[in-house]
Amino acid sequence: MKTAYKSIEPKDKLVADWKSLMRTFIRPEDDATRSVLLKYMEQILFGLNEFLKTHVGITQEISLKDLADQYTDSRIPMTPEKKLDAVITELIEEFAPRVVNVASPYFVGHMTAAIPFFMVHLKTIVTALNQNVVKIETSKLASVVEKQVLSKVHRLVYGFGDDFYGTHIQSVRTALGGVTEDGTLANMTALWVARNKLLAPKDGFGGVEKEGMSAALRAHSLDRCVLLVSRLAHYSLKKAAGVLGIGTDNVIAIDVDAHNRMDLNCLERKLTELRMSPVKSGILAIVGVAGATETGTIDPLPELADICAKGRIHFHVDAAWGGPTLMSDKYAALLRGIERSDSVVIDGHKQFYMPMSCGLVLFKDPTAMDAIEYHANYIMRPGSVDLGTKAIAGSRAANSLILDCALKIMGKNGYGLLLNHGIETARDLATEITSRPDFQLVTAPELNILTYRYCPADMQAALAKGSAEQRREINTLLDQINIQIQRFQREAGRSFVSRTTLKVDSLGPEGIVVLRCVIMNPMTDMVVLNDILDEQEAIYQKYIGNKLPIKM
Amino acid sequence: MKTAYKSIEPKDKLVADWKSLMRTFIRPEDDATRSVLLKYMEQILFGLNEFLKTHVGITQEISLKDLADQYTDSRIPMTPEKKLDAVITELIEEFAPRVVNVASPYFVGHMTAAIPFFMVHLKTIVTALNQNVVKIETSKLASVVEKQVLSKVHRLVYGFGDDFYGTHIQSVRTALGGVTEDGTLANMTALWVARNKLLAPKDGFGGVEKEGMSAALRAHSLDRCVLLVSRLAHYSLKKAAGVLGIGTDNVIAIDVDAHNRMDLNCLERKLTELRMSPVKSGILAIVGVAGATETGTIDPLPELADICAKGRIHFHVDAAWGGPTLMSDKYAALLRGIERSDSVVIDGHKQFYMPMSCGLVLFKDPTAMDAIEYHANYIMRPGSVDLGTKAIAGSRAANSLILDCALKIMGKNGYGLLLNHGIETARDLATEITSRPDFQLVTAPELNILTYRYCPADMQAALAKGSAEQRREINTLLDQINIQIQRFQREAGRSFVSRTTLKVDSLGPEGIVVLRCVIMNPMTDMVVLNDILDEQEAIYQKYIGNKLPIKM
Repeated sequence: MKTAYKSIEPKDKLVADWKSLMRTFIRPEDDATRSVLLKYMEQILFGLNEFLKTHVGITQEISLKDLADQYTDSRIPMTPEKKLDAVITELIEEFAPRVVNVASPYFVGHMTAAIPFFMVHLKTIVTALNQNVVKIETSKLASVVEKQVLSKVHRLVYGFGDDFYGTHIQSVRTALGGVTEDGTLANMTALWVARNKLLAPKDGFGGVEKEGMSAALRAHSLDRCVLLVSRLAHYSLKKAAGVLGIGTDNVIAIDVDAHNRMDLNCLERKLTELRMSPVKSGILAIVGVAGATETGTIDPLPELADICAKGRIHFHVDAAWGGPTLMSDKYAALLRGIERSDSVVIDGHKQFYMPMSCGLVLFKDPTAMDAIEYHANYIMRPGSVDLGTKAIAGSRAANSLILDCALKIMGKNGYGLLLNHGIETARDLATEITSRPDFQLVTAPELNILTYRYCPADMQAALAKGSAEQRREINTLLDQINIQIQRFQREAGRSFVSRTTLKVDSLGPEGIVVLRCVIMNPMTDMVVLNDILDEQEAIYQKYIGNKLPIKM
Repeated sequence: MKTAYKSIEPKDKLVADWKSLMRTFIRPEDDATRSVLLKYMEQILFGLNEFLKTHVGITQEISLKDLADQYTDSRIPMTPEKKLDAVITELIEEFAPRVVNVASPYFVGHMTAAIPFFMVHLKTIVTALNQNVVKIETSKLASVVEKQVLSKVHRLVYGFGDDFYGTHIQSVRTALGGVTEDGTLANMTALWVARNKLLAPKDGFGGVEKEGMSAALRAHSLDRCVLLVSRLAHYSLKKAAGVLGIGTDNVIAIDVDAHNRMDLNCLERKLTELRMSPVKSGILAIVGVAGATETGTIDPLPELADICAKGRIHFHVDAAWGGPTLMSDKYAALLRGIERSDSVVIDGHKQFYMPMSCGLVLFKDPTAMDAIEYHANYIMRPGSVDLGTKAIAGSRAANSLILDCALKIMGKNGYGLLLNHGIETARDLATEITSRPDFQLVTAPELNILTYRYCPADMQAALAKGSAEQRREINTLLDQINIQIQRFQREAGRSFVSRTTLKVDSLGPEGIVVLRCVIMNPMTDMVVLNDILDEQEAIYQKYIGNKLPIKM
């Protein structure tokens, strides 16, 4: 294909001139130009398609180092280097084969998968209209639609009645939530609001937003603010605490129980300890995770809601992963208690199957976001309906339109089918892993994520009867084995699972390396998953088992 | 067209079933499906085009209130409501006419304008590949390309030599900058780094990121941190200070001189005052603006660089608007001094003409971003090349690919032509405004932004000879006149200028209402701009002049 690409390279040097420049801005009138533009789009839709079809696996075999060595040009060319057709051809023939085929059913390692075809069309519309939802003057209906879709997701989570939504859905004074670039910024927004609520203005003190963290703690007679989260919580909560001036040391990780849910006894003990301590701590929030990144597990939301209600503590639920499960009639109940939270985060690009990337943050109280309100002279004047008045970012694309359309096209039931498939396939996979003598299920899937490790039967037996010291040695060896299996498999390029390190009480006091599967692609079925397990077994047999330093 | 839309509405109720759901995920093999998908894309590219062509103006005449009343459905439908073709038709026929035609040459009110057609194609590629650049495992080459394009923009700003870029362009240890959702988050990232550098770990203190703002000030024997900015700086700097726990009160606005540039005497006085004060202030950064949002003016960057170098203060330049001017051979010198900054922000969706939205932040020191490094177990392990280790957001689309391609297609010269057109047209507009007896130029364009007001000749004469009290009265009246002109014009829907409130010493001590033009659309020429001024004059004559409470 190299030749085809070369042949459309311009023979003469390109020059930037006003006339050809204008042509890139003017909307085409003549059929010839239109058909050229459409031809490019066809190349994009189906040229990429050819690549993605032939690369069933993940990526072409080339090391990152070799790849990086080819992209070391730090100069912007003076004159145009390539025309659009050459750029598109290059992207299809040279670029696409070297990115990651996240749409492959064999790509089950991360929370990124195939998206429905229509998402690409919807994004193209958003791009062509190029609205900026920071303000009405550059978005108009796009801002109105954003408010509507936020209400839809708010209702999915909190389920208030028609009166409530009738009042707030298009209110210019209140906000049911916001759209952010991703879950990290959505979590940061939720904690920003919680911080400003806790360290609110009082008795001549102007509030933390105006006077800063140090003055705020002084005014509220506190030594520090803390955040209580499960030890399986996403790292973005720590990052949010760092950014917000709270300090990552003040994010207190609570241990989990045997089911990887926040241990309520540990939490209560920590709360008592905080209350009794001479160091005065303000509790910014307790965070429940609904779909932990590594294990997919859900914290005990109803009990956390009780504790927060009793202590008048902000209850935040990070449902970036699990939130859309509310659309499944069969499994929505797993998230029971989420409706009692003060704020919730759900990612659009995860189980709403939107294109990368989109985060949503919702607040039960429609006035909560007043705590982070900003104005400017040239836009977002007080009383304006500009969405930018209550947001961590400024300029933003109207990505909420994609979600609004997707909900119409899919319906709750359509999403429900996808979510059910993920959960049920993960359960089948867990059964399969348990039935294979050389595999060990580490965390069972509560939603559609599970972890396991390759653990030959003889090692399992040795683990069962070994001393603490022997178990530690075997676990260390197993860590190496699983790191190697994952790397071999990734490099072979046919399939991809991820790996992480988990502390699992039943397996010893140290963190152990586990393989992690996330099942969200509807084309990922047990045939695919058995292939993946078979390949791991084959990798062990061929490359690892015979080179082991220890014989069992 | 209403009929056409109705006719493709499904007659029977849609149901979500697995088979049709799978079809939306499977890449089409047969020609029929492919041609349907392409037909949709044609509708999008040219259906929207029809609308944008016929609506030369800004938007259809409908009040926001009436619009909002039509979007009050807070329920997610159980079953699919519409098929893709119906959704697209609705978007083209019902949605597009009610958003804002930011691509119109008559839309000169904000920093959003037409983008080259190829940007839509490039974004479609980014969407179809759906890479997540938070980590290599979901992006591979896309992350490598992002590092390359950041180097290109870094070199444009800082102009280091081949050795420097050879070392850092693909280094896994260093970072020349980052890509954010927009300029607000880019500014926040720069100040986050500056905060962590100022309040660094020392003598048993773990650093502000770990221990929080309050402990950090204590450890560094400070009472507060301050940020020094021009009073014309963007509100995002204040928001960043609020979010980062510094407090918006600690953002010190320095007055501007007659050319709307930060007044260096005021700055020096403030620095002395801070040094002498019993309240100990750490200076987080001095921020120079390169292209103020309201006036397009540029702070005296070389002098600010001197002051920062002398005081060992972080020098940040907010060039969200003006940065790309560096690509214009004719006007790059206006930004002289930017190469001496510690950090710079440039927006991609502004004068790089990228689709909404993309911010860039660059750091002179390739290790600066170490101050905001995060890791996790499942990705971004220490030593990884994952871009997410040093970023305010997590999951992100590979929008940097669009910029990389655009630089190839346009070349520096292509962008230069666009930037020159904007600056020179703004100068012509200033001349035209000055020559019209009933208009008053308020701030002359240093780049491609200017402000003016409608000010009938008799009022200009009265202003020139009036007492302070009379001038105040006239200015108040002029404010009302200009607010009305801007609103009438916006509502008429043919063209759009924005308005803001500026304090201009020569016109009195109070802020005055001005009209603001931003010239970035290459199709905006003096014919268009004269039309806009004529319309403003006509609005005044027809609706306002005869109803004035005061006769001059």
